[in-house]
Amino acid sequence: MVDILHRVGIKSSLGEVYKALATCEGVAGWWTNSAQGESKIGGALQFRFSAGGKEIGRFEMKVLELQPNQRVMWQVVDGSAEWIGTTITFELRQEGEYAIVLFKHQGWKEPVEFMHHCSTKWAIFLMSLKSLVEIGKGAPSPEDTKIDNWN
Amino acid sequence: MVDILHRVGIKSSLGEVYKALATCEGVAGWWTNSAQGESKIGGALQFRFSAGGKEIGRFEMKVLELQPNQRVMWQVVDGSAEWIGTTITFELRQEGEYAIVLFKHQGWKEPVEFMHHCSTKWAIFLMSLKSLVEIGKGAPSPEDTKIDNWN
Repeated sequence: MVDILHRVGIKSSLGEVYKALATCEGVAGWWTNSAQGESKIGGALQFRFSAGGKEIGRFEMKVLELQPNQRVMWQVVDGSAEWIGTTITFELRQEGEYAIVLFKHQGWKEPVEFMHHCSTKWAIFLMSLKSLVEIGKGAPSPEDTKIDNWN
Repeated sequence: MVDILHRVGIKSSLGEVYKALATCEGVAGWWTNSAQGESKIGGALQFRFSAGGKEIGRFEMKVLELQPNQRVMWQVVDGSAEWIGTTITFELRQEGEYAIVLFKHQGWKEPVEFMHHCSTKWAIFLMSLKSLVEIGKGAPSPEDTKIDNWN
């Protein structure tokens, strides 16, 4: 079992970061502008990714946890085979002027090459989250920074 | 045992990427401008990191592998306690117009919070490597992008 782990610090209150993680409108500002669904416990969220006008991926998540200003957890129920069944967790806590985000994408069966790609890509998206909260503008798909030939 | 894994694709020949990984001058262009030592099998490399004019970290690596256009591997012999004994590997291969870099920082004993930080930070530095090779300018320490309150 191998995990993708990241840490970013956002100059902000926990409330602003939580809003960007716990609402569809929030996630649309940093991960993908195509975000739909109901962000409530047991609800389903659909995220679609595109590049050059073409869809390149889509995921459906079930919302497992929504603890205000503390924790958001999703489980992948549809999408890339490697992602199905994995969980994505954002843990929040304040440290001085920073809202610290500990990110975990857990439950990968094997450290496949696609996992290497997703690890780098998550870092880029978490920096997009930081930018959204700190300066009001993220870089969600399809405006995201390209890292390799897979996008 | 937990690993940090990343993948970037660089629009370049393998030779240019290898040069940026296998020479001190190359590494100084994307990781830290304070890079010293002899990049040869068995040689030692010293890397120092600073922010705001102060040293914030230093590492010494032993060069384990240098396979031209294929693979570079270091072992950490001094620095942060969590890093000592870990290995850092860059695997290269061409895929169309991209030089693909598979990055692995392996041998962490525990998935500590510092590992989350280092995972995100490595992604940022690998994007700096991509920028160095593609447009001639990376963002090595102390010009690196800050990700949190640890730098």
